[in-house]
Amino acid sequence: MNILFWGIGNMGLKIVNRLADAGHTLHAWDINKKNFNLLNKDIIQCQSKDEDTGVVYDAIISILPDDDACRDLAYNTEHLKKNVIWINLSTISVKLNDELTNFFSNGEKYISSPVMGRMDMAEKGLLDVYYGGKIETFNDLKEIYKVFSKKVWFCGEHHNSGLICKLAGNFLLNSAIESISEATSLAIKNNISENLFSEIMLSDVFDCPAYHLYFNLIKNRSFTPPGFRIRLGLKDINLICSAAEASYTTMPVAYLVKDRFIESIASGNEDLDESAISLCSFKHSGILK
Amino acid sequence: MNILFWGIGNMGLKIVNRLADAGHTLHAWDINKKNFNLLNKDIIQCQSKDEDTGVVYDAIISILPDDDACRDLAYNTEHLKKNVIWINLSTISVKLNDELTNFFSNGEKYISSPVMGRMDMAEKGLLDVYYGGKIETFNDLKEIYKVFSKKVWFCGEHHNSGLICKLAGNFLLNSAIESISEATSLAIKNNISENLFSEIMLSDVFDCPAYHLYFNLIKNRSFTPPGFRIRLGLKDINLICSAAEASYTTMPVAYLVKDRFIESIASGNEDLDESAISLCSFKHSGILK
Repeated sequence: MNILFWGIGNMGLKIVNRLADAGHTLHAWDINKKNFNLLNKDIIQCQSKDEDTGVVYDAIISILPDDDACRDLAYNTEHLKKNVIWINLSTISVKLNDELTNFFSNGEKYISSPVMGRMDMAEKGLLDVYYGGKIETFNDLKEIYKVFSKKVWFCGEHHNSGLICKLAGNFLLNSAIESISEATSLAIKNNISENLFSEIMLSDVFDCPAYHLYFNLIKNRSFTPPGFRIRLGLKDINLICSAAEASYTTMPVAYLVKDRFIESIASGNEDLDESAISLCSFKHSGILK
Repeated sequence: MNILFWGIGNMGLKIVNRLADAGHTLHAWDINKKNFNLLNKDIIQCQSKDEDTGVVYDAIISILPDDDACRDLAYNTEHLKKNVIWINLSTISVKLNDELTNFFSNGEKYISSPVMGRMDMAEKGLLDVYYGGKIETFNDLKEIYKVFSKKVWFCGEHHNSGLICKLAGNFLLNSAIESISEATSLAIKNNISENLFSEIMLSDVFDCPAYHLYFNLIKNRSFTPPGFRIRLGLKDINLICSAAEASYTTMPVAYLVKDRFIESIASGNEDLDESAISLCSFKHSGILK
């Protein structure tokens, strides 16, 4: 397939390279060129977002950092006027997803299917894809998704189904970080070894990837290089709070966690890994100055 | 060994029967006799808390519902004056644990080692024991603990070490219930199937016993018979909040969860399983009337 790929951030880089390795013909674009030298050699680098390469694309795939970036490419390029399908892997707002679905032929040519997974999973092509949209389109696209994912979830026919699953999953991850931080604070303040406490918790009831990841990042204060930056974490928790408000769902823990992200950025920690919101608990409890 | 066992509640019943099956000689007492007919036939039932059976006990083991029950047996019986070791498996307050440790020969004859695990684990002898106290005593007692547990954790030499690990672990469980409730509410309000949402979450990042248990109980609204009653859950979250305050640890999620327990009891749900605090989220979001 001829694919135009938007967004060569750390996650996009892994996905686009896998698509090229799988034999697809790729054009790539990003406003930020920092990762372009890491692109697979067969990938053609576009010089501008609206560059006319003369190629008729079969699909546009994007993984972009936020609503603004998606909106810019949606409305300010010619590419999407050419009856091509846009597969959006970005985590964006429910509001923008409604808007884009409505704008692009009532969703037939626009699919929101955010991906879940950290960098090491993306590296190995083991992401999860959360698809929301028509089942026929899902069946058509499955083979593409499989190039970079271990599992493609059909979350429902509604265009927001995949997005909501992603946001709800992100919320569970964020709230696990907060809970681990508070529990670890209690342990530290009572002279329990952090190694022992995490070993006990991870040995059985919480023996799963999320708790292993966050317990270890927090225990080792291993916040840089970031797997997922606090700055982006704030964007995501804002999307969760907005989705909750839009559907009249009360999520008090989400708002509490949102304040942790805000406080972390206020402390100058915006480029640390999101598990560094644990430092808020540690500071409040006098463990850190 | 000659053992006097205090507390024949649902958990105590499983433990005392296993001790008898392992060949120990058991006397049992509880103010509530409802489970006495389920005791192993070799266990001798005491008629009063202070009954003089003429036996010199090697150990007293207790698993009691709260501080008051522990205090009553600690101070109002003759048994503990006879240089016997008291192995307390109950989850009690840090304050009472300090007091009892101080009262009983500075902790040499009193050991706080609360157990973790639901009924099905107790049934199979697969509890976790969180031991806090001298390492020599730990080595002496390990064989007894092994009769009813899969793992005995040495949490530290301080008398509160085991108790703090238990309380911090309970907090992680309670906060997981709350987070799952909020995430599930967001899914429901956006017409995502609860079965699908839990399947996605449990397939990988949260594939661990705690999340499987609570996702399933909540999804099936399976709150009775209770694995652990809301009434007892409030007691435990109060112990967590008190331990946090005593050590000057801030735990905002713990206080939020505490309010869920209070609201649940105010709604008449005190005898449901503690996972039924999820009904608060469902009500607040208009999913339930």
